[in-house]
Amino acid sequence: MSRIRSSQEWEVRASTLARKTTNPIRQIVEHLQVEPNPEKELIALSIGDPTTFGNLNPPDQLLQAVRESIELHKSRGYAPSKGHYEARVAVAKYSAHQGEVSPEDVILTSGCSHAIEMVITAIADCGQNILIPRPGFSIYQTLSEGFGIKTKYYNLLPNEHWKIDLDDLESQIDDDTVAIVINNPSNPCGSVYDKEHLYEILEIASRNKVPIIADEIYEHFVFAGRQFTPISSISKDVPVLTCSGLTKRFLVPGWRMGWVVIHDRNDVLGKEIRLALSNLSMRILGPSALIQTALPAILECTPQSFFDEVLLFIETQAKLAYKELRVAPGLRPIEPQGAMYMMIEIKMALFPEFKDECQFVESLVAEQSVFCLPGQCFEYPNYMRIVLTVPEDKLREACQRITIFCKEHVIGEKRKEIETND
Amino acid sequence: MSRIRSSQEWEVRASTLARKTTNPIRQIVEHLQVEPNPEKELIALSIGDPTTFGNLNPPDQLLQAVRESIELHKSRGYAPSKGHYEARVAVAKYSAHQGEVSPEDVILTSGCSHAIEMVITAIADCGQNILIPRPGFSIYQTLSEGFGIKTKYYNLLPNEHWKIDLDDLESQIDDDTVAIVINNPSNPCGSVYDKEHLYEILEIASRNKVPIIADEIYEHFVFAGRQFTPISSISKDVPVLTCSGLTKRFLVPGWRMGWVVIHDRNDVLGKEIRLALSNLSMRILGPSALIQTALPAILECTPQSFFDEVLLFIETQAKLAYKELRVAPGLRPIEPQGAMYMMIEIKMALFPEFKDECQFVESLVAEQSVFCLPGQCFEYPNYMRIVLTVPEDKLREACQRITIFCKEHVIGEKRKEIETND
Ligand SMILES: Cc1ncc(COP(=O)(O)O)c(C=O)c1O
Ligand SMILES: Cc1ncc(COP(=O)(O)O)c(C=O)c1O
Repeated sequence: MSRIRSSQEWEVRASTLARKTTNPIRQIVEHLQVEPNPEKELIALSIGDPTTFGNLNPPDQLLQAVRESIELHKSRGYAPSKGHYEARVAVAKYSAHQGEVSPEDVILTSGCSHAIEMVITAIADCGQNILIPRPGFSIYQTLSEGFGIKTKYYNLLPNEHWKIDLDDLESQIDDDTVAIVINNPSNPCGSVYDKEHLYEILEIASRNKVPIIADEIYEHFVFAGRQFTPISSISKDVPVLTCSGLTKRFLVPGWRMGWVVIHDRNDVLGKEIRLALSNLSMRILGPSALIQTALPAILECTPQSFFDEVLLFIETQAKLAYKELRVAPGLRPIEPQGAMYMMIEIKMALFPEFKDECQFVESLVAEQSVFCLPGQCFEYPNYMRIVLTVPEDKLREACQRITIFCKEHVIGEKRKEIETND
Repeated sequence: MSRIRSSQEWEVRASTLARKTTNPIRQIVEHLQVEPNPEKELIALSIGDPTTFGNLNPPDQLLQAVRESIELHKSRGYAPSKGHYEARVAVAKYSAHQGEVSPEDVILTSGCSHAIEMVITAIADCGQNILIPRPGFSIYQTLSEGFGIKTKYYNLLPNEHWKIDLDDLESQIDDDTVAIVINNPSNPCGSVYDKEHLYEILEIASRNKVPIIADEIYEHFVFAGRQFTPISSISKDVPVLTCSGLTKRFLVPGWRMGWVVIHDRNDVLGKEIRLALSNLSMRILGPSALIQTALPAILECTPQSFFDEVLLFIETQAKLAYKELRVAPGLRPIEPQGAMYMMIEIKMALFPEFKDECQFVESLVAEQSVFCLPGQCFEYPNYMRIVLTVPEDKLREACQRITIFCKEHVIGEKRKEIETND
């Protein structure tokens, strides 16, 4: 009666999903030689966790909200898998700048990563594709490829503050395109799109009938003189699934509290996509109820001054790094308008001893103990990304070391030019 | 250059994954008429959240551990996606009864559901199958079917304390079977397997070279006189992926803290499956660092007396419900040995007015305001499941109402018999 399997040896294979779930950043970094110069303290400008160095801390109100939440019975039991109603009400209010939002439009998730996973896997099937920015954050690939969902790049224009190459964007759309991912403000670019550009993007989405996934985890991270416009707030017909959370703005990346907000003014998504998201939320039953219970107080009580201070710090850092690196021979930093990163072009022709920017950053670590992520991590060779949230003295020191490194390695003519000017 | 899509109407479809991610319990319950009798307070014996009624509360030490964790810088930043090392050390120690466990064998997850999702999706591909118990908890289907991973049932034997029908188990194994799920102690059965039976299961797994997924979220929930044996602790060659967490034992289901422990004494899984799990953990970056940071203190400082008290309460409740319902005409409760549930056979032939057990529970709500989950929720008609963690007076009252209901609905002869005895 029993059926002995043909295989008589143990043979346990990983699934396609597991094998194809990869993190390009980790893979590239693992293959780098990052042996710092033992005589200089390592300064890592590579880590996208703003809390790493201890100079940026979450608001007291947020900590207090969780202290109080611990004492509440409600914070211990299962929450509905889309999240506690009160918490979804709070997110709806907090997200009013995105357009009209009701608690029914909100699903709480375990961080913004989980929000992105949910929206991608809710609308994309194996063989279909989503369009993602280049340069861009690798998470969209990490979350798609295991499912056989393809990612197709559209280009950003480094000389136009990383605006989207609209012709390229539209040319990438095909019959299998189910979503365009817009990451604004951007990691790694630090760009912030104005309304006009967002209208142009929406026009393409509307004409081609492709919904938008808006990764706005850096919402409100925009420097003086610029304005943050959520793409959903100006969309007329294009449905927008916005992903955000506490992670960056409230400086608690480890807490894993994110959300999806569904914007669907013209009822294009219908019940089907809401049901899809609701189904997917049942898989792991949402984020920690402890944080959910604190969420209303966190979102309502954190004072504007907290956000202003953090932002002022990042903007000051951006200016510092830009000013310092603008004069580093062979580099061209691109001034950010928001978020917490800066991209820097490395004019590789001026550094012929390095095959590519990976070799450049390897040598930079080996000699100056400064580590920046190579552009390849964002599908963008010849660039490197730095994080602006490190303490000021470290950033200054790092920029100075980068400048020395460039001076020492830039090709002869350029170097002579520098020496003459010195 | 641009390519206008063929579809000129908006048409956004849900993915297969989202459409096929369903919760059978929810679907069945949604189709039930559950209108309680307005004259009697509703007693829900259906909810698997032991904290619902407020009579069971987590240990002080656990709350204190999180209070302290809030103040720590470490609890705010990103943790490694497999979890903080210290937390994994703590889980390894806590899981020593499962066999030798090193921190490298532990991956922290967002609840036990996430642990189960990770292990299933790490080893099963679309078209392959896993074997799951009948009756059994629906989560295994919920997590598999969206991926095209098939679930095949093996039967449990109600008259042998829900032991596995071993012949049936082995006959279900085919060339596409990649894992056997063993849920011990069991939801919904409340059964606890002895060593001998676990050896029999392992023999089948070993002979057929099929790894085991052990859902041991109710570990240690065993009543006096019985012993809990983790299946991993007695496995010689069969790799076991154990899923557990804080959820039930520490009475914090909402906190979403679970883990996978890899047991692979003979190195059958090799690097591939560890890498698979590690890859999958990158998708949502693990559970909240706030709870992770508290985990060592939670696991080390919770006193045995806390567990003993909770268990004694549940066991007393089990005895109460068994004693009360054993005499309800037409019912046959099956005495549980652990966990926090009891299955009750409804001798449907004695209740001919009801088409099936769903109609039985519907009428029970309508007349007596007591709600039990129909067996269909666990793929097991003619039974219903009750939860034992409700307060004692509620449980007693509910059992009495169930008994009245049975007396009023059992067929004539049986009723006469009762009346004669009364
Ligand atoms: C653009 C972008 N999206 C999403 C995320 C993920 O956020 P979370 O940590 O909330 O999952 C990040 C994190 O760095 C990010 O930079
Ligand atoms: C047998 C079984 N496994 C897994 C789970 C899920 O546990 P968690 O809430 O930690 O995801 C449950 C919850 O009821 C359960 O009964």
